[in-house]
Amino acid sequence: MADTESVVIDYEKYRVRAAQPVALADMLTSDTQGFKREAARKIHKRNLKLLAELQERLYAQSRQSLLVVLQAMDTGGKDSTIRKLCERLNPQGCHVASFKAPSDNELSHDFLWRVHQKVPSAGYIGIFNRSHYEDVLIVRVHDWASPETIESRYQRINEFEQLLADRGTRIVKIMLNISREYQLQRLRLRLIHPEKHWKFNPADLAEREHWDDYMQAYEIALNRCSNEQSPWYVIPAEKRWFRDAVVSQLVVNTLIDMNPQFPAPDFDPADYPPESLK
Amino acid sequence: MADTESVVIDYEKYRVRAAQPVALADMLTSDTQGFKREAARKIHKRNLKLLAELQERLYAQSRQSLLVVLQAMDTGGKDSTIRKLCERLNPQGCHVASFKAPSDNELSHDFLWRVHQKVPSAGYIGIFNRSHYEDVLIVRVHDWASPETIESRYQRINEFEQLLADRGTRIVKIMLNISREYQLQRLRLRLIHPEKHWKFNPADLAEREHWDDYMQAYEIALNRCSNEQSPWYVIPAEKRWFRDAVVSQLVVNTLIDMNPQFPAPDFDPADYPPESLK
Repeated sequence: MADTESVVIDYEKYRVRAAQPVALADMLTSDTQGFKREAARKIHKRNLKLLAELQERLYAQSRQSLLVVLQAMDTGGKDSTIRKLCERLNPQGCHVASFKAPSDNELSHDFLWRVHQKVPSAGYIGIFNRSHYEDVLIVRVHDWASPETIESRYQRINEFEQLLADRGTRIVKIMLNISREYQLQRLRLRLIHPEKHWKFNPADLAEREHWDDYMQAYEIALNRCSNEQSPWYVIPAEKRWFRDAVVSQLVVNTLIDMNPQFPAPDFDPADYPPESLK
Repeated sequence: MADTESVVIDYEKYRVRAAQPVALADMLTSDTQGFKREAARKIHKRNLKLLAELQERLYAQSRQSLLVVLQAMDTGGKDSTIRKLCERLNPQGCHVASFKAPSDNELSHDFLWRVHQKVPSAGYIGIFNRSHYEDVLIVRVHDWASPETIESRYQRINEFEQLLADRGTRIVKIMLNISREYQLQRLRLRLIHPEKHWKFNPADLAEREHWDDYMQAYEIALNRCSNEQSPWYVIPAEKRWFRDAVVSQLVVNTLIDMNPQFPAPDFDPADYPPESLK
């Protein structure tokens, strides 16, 4: 039933309701809502086409912007999610910012300084591969900041996202949800295939030991920083074809809701009959 | 004959030889080398697949970078060239920078300041939609700088590009070549279709009046700034399917010549037998 093209993927079930407790252990990381691979791929393909059209309007209108924040554990599929989402996009209207370990200069500023510089301007789609949420995730897990500092950051994040929203930026935050067992399989694949060795980092194994602490840090962040104007979605990410379709559906529907329109020309077309041009 | 897949597009015929005079009026803007649309599309598609593979190696190696500079008259197709070239690229490893009229802050610096900030770092592909060459094109046509200043810029540009080359950046510069008549058709299309009105700017008609001056400015820039390590190509751009295939062929072959390799892992794989992971 769910494999006909007219059936819509329900991404709202993955939305974290404001101020509601989140229990990641209860969420199915391999959910597919009964969709089969081919049906999900069709939906994704249709979404990409719509996305390209909506992006052109967003760019032409040049008043609103869209920010997609992606977070996941290692091997969670952030890179391939971005590649699959952007296939039909105009690369000129879409910027991907990856946030790795902060530089000395970045550390000598407040934690929002480096991300603020990368938010999309009017007309653009911005994608964050990791984000300011690292400052309440990895930082919390490793006690790299005091409990008071971390506690204050949830509020600072909400205020920052409000600032962006006030200027016309819609924010959609996605956690790609995988299980500890799935990560193990993916890490093994990186070791089995020599051409994937460059993606393997022994330090990832040490991080993996902190899995439960990470899950707890995610739960707190999701609970404290999901709200109507800037929601978090916890998307099952082990079936990559399903993940792609959910993500593209979410992004397309967000843009439909933003309803970008081609602007009125700032000239009178009557003044420029095409045949008069020479 | 030229429409079989094994035939290779000859982009070298569009290369501007160092210090050789260029006569744009003698160059066919609608050249297709005898290729048919379908054959060119096949070549382009194959190139995009190769490009994705080469990009992954470039990114993994993280030692070299590629900069593609695109220049053209209005309606020359810079935007669609970029969109077609990037379809299969990983958007995280590719940055497009568009240079419009400089801001007050940009004008308060030397003319290379703003472009220098946007050059690709190691592992990345950078694409410039317009570039530092505007400072010897539109600026020359409108006398926005003194003849001495403009004269000095060709040398400054060559030195700047040498600086980038020294650090491992390959530069490929492309002029998408169209005729004045072709531009007229494209401008008319923008007026005929209301959904294209936002792309029409009455000021483009005034620029069009300076066509011959622009051609002369291009010829000087091509002549002065094409060299072995940072060549200019004048690519016939009126048949867009042919243009796409030439551009992708040029970019792919440049990357093949750069020969990026997956790096050796910085760990000993023998220390991490896949089955030992837990």
